[in-house]
Amino acid sequence: MAALKTVLDRIDANLEAALARLFKLVSIKSVSTDPAFADDCAAAAQFLSDELASLGFEASVRPTAGHPMVVAHAKAARPDVPHLLFYGHYDVQPPDPLELWESPPFEPKIVEAETGRRIVGRGVADDKGQLMTFIEAVRAFKETGDLPCKITVLLEGEEETGSPSLPVFLAANKGELEADLALVCDTGMWDRRTPAITTMLRGLVTEEVIIRGADRDLHSGIFGSAAVNPIHALARVIAGLHDADGKITLPGFYDAVAELPEEVAEQWRALKFDEAAFLGAVGLSVPAGEKGRSVLEMVWSRPSCDVNGIIGGYTGKGSKTVLPAQASAKFSFRLVGAQDPAKIAESFRAYVRKSLPQDCRVEFIPHGGSKALNLPFSSESLSRASRALQAEWDATPVLAGCGGSIPIVGSFKSDLNMDTLMIGFGLEDDRVHSPNEKYELSSFHKGARSWARVLDALAL
Amino acid sequence: MAALKTVLDRIDANLEAALARLFKLVSIKSVSTDPAFADDCAAAAQFLSDELASLGFEASVRPTAGHPMVVAHAKAARPDVPHLLFYGHYDVQPPDPLELWESPPFEPKIVEAETGRRIVGRGVADDKGQLMTFIEAVRAFKETGDLPCKITVLLEGEEETGSPSLPVFLAANKGELEADLALVCDTGMWDRRTPAITTMLRGLVTEEVIIRGADRDLHSGIFGSAAVNPIHALARVIAGLHDADGKITLPGFYDAVAELPEEVAEQWRALKFDEAAFLGAVGLSVPAGEKGRSVLEMVWSRPSCDVNGIIGGYTGKGSKTVLPAQASAKFSFRLVGAQDPAKIAESFRAYVRKSLPQDCRVEFIPHGGSKALNLPFSSESLSRASRALQAEWDATPVLAGCGGSIPIVGSFKSDLNMDTLMIGFGLEDDRVHSPNEKYELSSFHKGARSWARVLDALAL
Repeated sequence: MAALKTVLDRIDANLEAALARLFKLVSIKSVSTDPAFADDCAAAAQFLSDELASLGFEASVRPTAGHPMVVAHAKAARPDVPHLLFYGHYDVQPPDPLELWESPPFEPKIVEAETGRRIVGRGVADDKGQLMTFIEAVRAFKETGDLPCKITVLLEGEEETGSPSLPVFLAANKGELEADLALVCDTGMWDRRTPAITTMLRGLVTEEVIIRGADRDLHSGIFGSAAVNPIHALARVIAGLHDADGKITLPGFYDAVAELPEEVAEQWRALKFDEAAFLGAVGLSVPAGEKGRSVLEMVWSRPSCDVNGIIGGYTGKGSKTVLPAQASAKFSFRLVGAQDPAKIAESFRAYVRKSLPQDCRVEFIPHGGSKALNLPFSSESLSRASRALQAEWDATPVLAGCGGSIPIVGSFKSDLNMDTLMIGFGLEDDRVHSPNEKYELSSFHKGARSWARVLDALAL
Repeated sequence: MAALKTVLDRIDANLEAALARLFKLVSIKSVSTDPAFADDCAAAAQFLSDELASLGFEASVRPTAGHPMVVAHAKAARPDVPHLLFYGHYDVQPPDPLELWESPPFEPKIVEAETGRRIVGRGVADDKGQLMTFIEAVRAFKETGDLPCKITVLLEGEEETGSPSLPVFLAANKGELEADLALVCDTGMWDRRTPAITTMLRGLVTEEVIIRGADRDLHSGIFGSAAVNPIHALARVIAGLHDADGKITLPGFYDAVAELPEEVAEQWRALKFDEAAFLGAVGLSVPAGEKGRSVLEMVWSRPSCDVNGIIGGYTGKGSKTVLPAQASAKFSFRLVGAQDPAKIAESFRAYVRKSLPQDCRVEFIPHGGSKALNLPFSSESLSRASRALQAEWDATPVLAGCGGSIPIVGSFKSDLNMDTLMIGFGLEDDRVHSPNEKYELSSFHKGARSWARVLDALAL
């Protein structure tokens, strides 16, 4: 195996050629949501399979009910090193609205900006440029020697449509895909100088609640105040879910929620996250939520409860004095730590039932749930990856949380019993899913160098 | 002026001819909501104007921007008697769904039922049969002598479409229409044996409330719990409007609400209103609303507050983890006694503003309001009418409230400074607005006799 310096030098030397490869991939219109682009999705899968095969991987395009997967395997120089599963996705969002693009979305180009050179095109950040950082790192190892770790690559083409084929594929190919650790390159940096490892993903449990009163809409003049109003009942359910301090009132809700380790809390405080700017960007000025918690803490590491939608009665123009037969709302809970979606859902349902006035009936429609994911802060692989990133960027990586969910990471944990290291080089202003999507050249170049360092570190 | 007995005998003798006249009127398809029937509406107006002219009224069909009015005047035998304004409407609801009618809706007929003979056809109860009870009473007086009171008749053809032309017409013809007391025959009896005088109509004030938070919809994964959720804020507003005893919490809300006079309360208790049947008919079993108040008291004489509609965020199928930028609800308050719609609206707005979390803004859209109407229980005309009905039905008339509003009555009070006696002979099972609408023959016959007695009583 070549010394790390040789590998990093090769990445530097390869940069122009690497960009040409990325441009080829980006020019393939692999829009997964539109059946008209099914052939392009297949072409992107074939391109990547060929790339990996050319690097000595045992690579294949694997059909699914939807767009195909790419699976590729490569051995390491030594047998006693970890087996890593790298995941990325080659599908992209539709480029609409086209008229807002300053250059054609599928004709990638380099643009000079104040902050440096950047690559512009649909999918450069999400996720083609990101996944190519990993493949370029692998190339540099292969071109200068052997891989430091055993590597399996899994690339899907349905991430932007909710990965419908993935669970089936994981189950059917469990033996082939199981590894010691998963790597995902679909997240971002803290800022353009500071890398991040996402170690926490909040879980989610969603419940739609329909409250019914009378068996028909009533005239509020005739029945008003004598007949129960399901909108009132629903409002009381919602209002009672948070106490005056912004805490969620379900019994036992916080039982499985641990406080942050002090060193992580200290690191987050040191980030001096600009709450005013974060909220100000969307027209707000004060943090809602739990009193005494910072915004970063709340969105990265605390559970939450939101009503995402509500409807009942007359919602057209003007007024109509109807006393509606039903009202409904969609609730979602973001979960952290060891919170169990099933238990939270059950506790919520019990609370709703208990809150209901007589004469109201309730129906619950679950819309799925997933546990939170936590990479142990003390894990050896996290420490090694962190030191590797520190070496590349000369800045301490932020051990970040992520308020949203990345379902594949949950599947890796639940179906393949693997932890995941989420390392990515996207920036907040990359305009992912929007016109003029871009990826910083530094993200692409130093991203590949970062993966070389991480692979090297994980093998030692 | 003939003795009352002569007049009543004449009504009895006229019954078959009166039915023929009613059938003629019912066979005119005066559906006001559908422009295709504009000529029928005009024909109904002409028919009624001709009827009144044939009785010696100075009658005319008066054009409006919509369907015409009928106005007719007749002097009384003596100059020192009250001037009464009788109001009714000749327009009817569309007969749809036609397939549910057992006989053609505009071909009225007599049907034998267990409870007696009934007239079936669109509009027989609402309001053609009812208004004809008054005209038949007037006919009997005219055919046997003179009228006991000076009478103006006002019949409109837009009641089923919200009476758009009426306020303009009242304002333009104030001098002509002002009288001592208005009579309206568009309400019901307590039951088939017990007449009723509706002495209270609840008022109404409506406010639409839009609560806004962030300046766009947010991702609940990224902002959940850190950004204010307008649905939660709105739910707290709604939940806080009633206390645990079902009372409305707005400061001063009940200041202008008087308790019922004990004799009226006692009468209502004696009615032994079947709350279980009333609620059971719509699938409910327990009264909501103010603790310690009967259902009848609540819907007839107590104010209420209902949310008639609510909407916010994602309301499609499945779930979407959006944190919505806004949520809105339509509130309506039923008012009683001297409650002032403007003051109640102001108090509500102040309450909402005070309830809002920081970072939420509110917009109010008023959809109109009207004061409650109360005929003083001690009024002389009420006592006289009550005794007259008692004589006809051999049962004490119920001094009823009405949960809904009859806008014309408010206009009579506010624009013409007249109180209104609401006396009608409809029954709960008349299927008003529905297929197979009917009017009891006894309602029609004894209704005419009742009006003869009431006119006689008011003149004394």
